[in-house]
Amino acid sequence: MTEHTESAALRVALAYHRAWTSGDVDAAMAYVADDGFVCRAPGGDLSGKEAFRDYLHGFVQVNTGLTDIAAFGDQEHALLFYCPHTATTTTAPAAEHFTIRGGRIAESTLVFDRLSFAPPQ
Amino acid sequence: MTEHTESAALRVALAYHRAWTSGDVDAAMAYVADDGFVCRAPGGDLSGKEAFRDYLHGFVQVNTGLTDIAAFGDQEHALLFYCPHTATTTTAPAAEHFTIRGGRIAESTLVFDRLSFAPPQ
Repeated sequence: MTEHTESAALRVALAYHRAWTSGDVDAAMAYVADDGFVCRAPGGDLSGKEAFRDYLHGFVQVNTGLTDIAAFGDQEHALLFYCPHTATTTTAPAAEHFTIRGGRIAESTLVFDRLSFAPPQ
Repeated sequence: MTEHTESAALRVALAYHRAWTSGDVDAAMAYVADDGFVCRAPGGDLSGKEAFRDYLHGFVQVNTGLTDIAAFGDQEHALLFYCPHTATTTTAPAAEHFTIRGGRIAESTLVFDRLSFAPPQ
């Protein structure tokens, strides 16, 4: 990460981020709240841990690398900005905003441009 | 903003953000470097201040409101996360990462999901 503020919430978000970007979905999911989790993702919400696990698993299959750009956090929130690499792009950014409660990710909001990650036509 | 770290870079980014989201493109552009500015936006880079002014002006015409979610910064960078409102959506997020040099925005990287902002089919 080129930018980094220390916070308990950021530590949880980064642990999650490092787990899934290294391909370990199970380790990543250990940082996600068991109950009531929702991820607001482009195109629709993912409600519940199992729906999110499937979504993350799908992306991990096509993720080939990572460029981390920024990571910030305060007591209850974290915000990451990075470029996940796929066969289509290595320069399209994604941002994730996390709300952390009790050491787990209770909510996340994810943004990326779906068209930038679509296979070339 | 619900989250906020104090930094000189963040102050510049927020001044820019408040200007354009209130519709004042000229005031916003005063925070953008005169030379060498580039904005990496979904679909392509905008090189130079004039190209960016046109892009921002176009979005301001359809922007109807704003939900700020997070704002963080360190000495040279800032990161904003917010939902710009349009006739199509008030809940699709955007994130902007800024590099600040000499009190001006030297580079920015913008991410939003173009499909979420497209008019309904």
